[in-house]
Amino acid sequence: MLTDQQILRIPGPTPIPPSVNRAMSQPMIGHRGQSTSDMISAIRPKLKRVFGTQQEVMILTGSGTAGLETAVVNTVAPGEEVLVVVTGAFGERFVKICKAYDIKTHVLEVEWGQAADPETVKAFLQKHPEIKVVLSTFCETSTGVLNPVKEMAAAVKEVSEALFIVDGVSCVGGTETKMDEWEIDIVVTGSQKAFMLPAGLSFVAASERAWSKIEANTQPRFYLDLKKHRDNILKDTTPFTPALSILFGLQQVLELLEEEGLEQVYKRHQLMMNMTRAAFKALDIPLLTNDEAASPTVTAVKPADFDSEAFRKIMKKEFGLEVAGGQQHLAKTIFRIGHMGYCSPADMLQAIAAMEIGLIKVGKEIELGKGVQAAQQIYLNEGE
Amino acid sequence: MLTDQQILRIPGPTPIPPSVNRAMSQPMIGHRGQSTSDMISAIRPKLKRVFGTQQEVMILTGSGTAGLETAVVNTVAPGEEVLVVVTGAFGERFVKICKAYDIKTHVLEVEWGQAADPETVKAFLQKHPEIKVVLSTFCETSTGVLNPVKEMAAAVKEVSEALFIVDGVSCVGGTETKMDEWEIDIVVTGSQKAFMLPAGLSFVAASERAWSKIEANTQPRFYLDLKKHRDNILKDTTPFTPALSILFGLQQVLELLEEEGLEQVYKRHQLMMNMTRAAFKALDIPLLTNDEAASPTVTAVKPADFDSEAFRKIMKKEFGLEVAGGQQHLAKTIFRIGHMGYCSPADMLQAIAAMEIGLIKVGKEIELGKGVQAAQQIYLNEGE
Repeated sequence: MLTDQQILRIPGPTPIPPSVNRAMSQPMIGHRGQSTSDMISAIRPKLKRVFGTQQEVMILTGSGTAGLETAVVNTVAPGEEVLVVVTGAFGERFVKICKAYDIKTHVLEVEWGQAADPETVKAFLQKHPEIKVVLSTFCETSTGVLNPVKEMAAAVKEVSEALFIVDGVSCVGGTETKMDEWEIDIVVTGSQKAFMLPAGLSFVAASERAWSKIEANTQPRFYLDLKKHRDNILKDTTPFTPALSILFGLQQVLELLEEEGLEQVYKRHQLMMNMTRAAFKALDIPLLTNDEAASPTVTAVKPADFDSEAFRKIMKKEFGLEVAGGQQHLAKTIFRIGHMGYCSPADMLQAIAAMEIGLIKVGKEIELGKGVQAAQQIYLNEGE
Repeated sequence: MLTDQQILRIPGPTPIPPSVNRAMSQPMIGHRGQSTSDMISAIRPKLKRVFGTQQEVMILTGSGTAGLETAVVNTVAPGEEVLVVVTGAFGERFVKICKAYDIKTHVLEVEWGQAADPETVKAFLQKHPEIKVVLSTFCETSTGVLNPVKEMAAAVKEVSEALFIVDGVSCVGGTETKMDEWEIDIVVTGSQKAFMLPAGLSFVAASERAWSKIEANTQPRFYLDLKKHRDNILKDTTPFTPALSILFGLQQVLELLEEEGLEQVYKRHQLMMNMTRAAFKALDIPLLTNDEAASPTVTAVKPADFDSEAFRKIMKKEFGLEVAGGQQHLAKTIFRIGHMGYCSPADMLQAIAAMEIGLIKVGKEIELGKGVQAAQQIYLNEGE
């Protein structure tokens, strides 16, 4: 193996573009000075475009979980009941946060690997009109499922006054997100996935409806108080010390996204998903999710006849290529390939060609090159 | 195309490993201080191992051409005649340097794409006993040929007292080099090829026999005077201001080479060559050189039925992947793939898979995945 080479194909953190690394290595500046305000001012409109919103996107210094907790503590008033749609490990994260605050939490469990069904959500809410907030993941990182949040938002609105809150951590920036048009009340994401940054920043936007509730909410909070964050970002500053180097990086990331064009960024992710899925189908190796439920940012593979963990070890040892394992009950039965952020179709060709070698080495009988060929064909059909 | 992604597969400069970039970004220090001397002291024995010599390897601040000129001005006494074995553009570089000094220069021309033949060199020297220095490239970057310098050195020694000087710029560090055992009198290389650094340093080592001549040589020189360089490096310093950041990088490069193991580094280069050649053979696309003459660091492809320049443009546009064109009379008829330095078998799988798409796009009829398959098979047969 080539010393010093790491090929990171896990669903986050993701590789950091060279220009972003350069941006992040700028010398520290005072975070209350004009330069920082100028930077935040440049960031604000671009961040809104990624979220598909006219609302302010607030920048918290904290990881994705801080963003999720922010959504909960700002919108759920003491004594209110919530529904969490759980399609995997990160749906469960919402449940744990709610329970930490003694919130009465209804859980709609969906089999791991399947997407949530808007009709089921609607039916649940009809039976439980007391529910004031519905929480769901957008991309469920643990299974590679992209939940139909647009349709879920519509279903919620149809039968309930509840707010609809979405955890977009592993897909916003890599897949189309139209918060305003889809009438999602809160979207949360983190910096270390499609945003191509180290972990450390969390981004949260709220609808007008959500803001009314946030403003009236008596739930105690301080660092995660969205009102403080909005009051400050409107003045191009932050309520607390920001992770400045990641902000430098964010500014450059947003430049890169605009340079490529958001539509093109989303197409690239779609293309990488299709290449990856076509490869495993050609190799006759089962995928965890079906095409309709598949996320453009991460693909989960569920081997029927080889050891997923042994395969991952081989990939790491031979090529320095990391794919992720499964989580919880899927821990040893699936592996997950991240294809988001600073990742290209050429990178997927590399990952697929290398994985074919890993498959042979783990004892799986495949025809070498067959997965690559299928991916190449997809590229030729769908690529630029 | 993914913004900010460049896949550099030209035969130099080559990509820089992340840890080397980090090393090079250290703050400047005084180059006459103890820290610089400690660094040079740590570098010296490791550099000798790469050259396969017990002699000092001198570190000049200058590009490869400075190293070549150093070899000439230090070893060729005024009025002496030399022989240059020319197998491509970089052999011609030696001729130009000699002519700049009005040295009577014999030229042994070898068809581009072929390796020099030791027997022909021997016969030339037998006819021209007045020749005092023989100069040859090791890897001819312009054609992807690795000249048999071991056998050439033996041939020279057999019939002549001439010194044998080797330009190792595009292969030392990527292919076995045993300067002492092979009785090569001078080996020169640069920093920007298998050494995985930016251009700016040149490395030169001389045999005992060469040193006798260098010491007696009255040819005027100052910056390139090897005596000055030896006197200084023996005291862990340099006669003139060194390119300090590249020295920082060199120290880390030598760490990486030792960590991987030199034998393993050479095997990796051999493997990448074999994968690349197998791919083009499987695709039925002609290579410029035959297997015996092929270099482990660069492969020249000579398309019979598609436009090499159009192909290169497509690769750059679609994937940000750069392969080199030909030089001089091969300018538009070949393209060259670098596989040296910070480059892995996984990188070659990527390049091959992407090039297959480029071939289709340029109108060449191939079976997708066939080249990848051949390369994968080589990896499985020869890899770790």
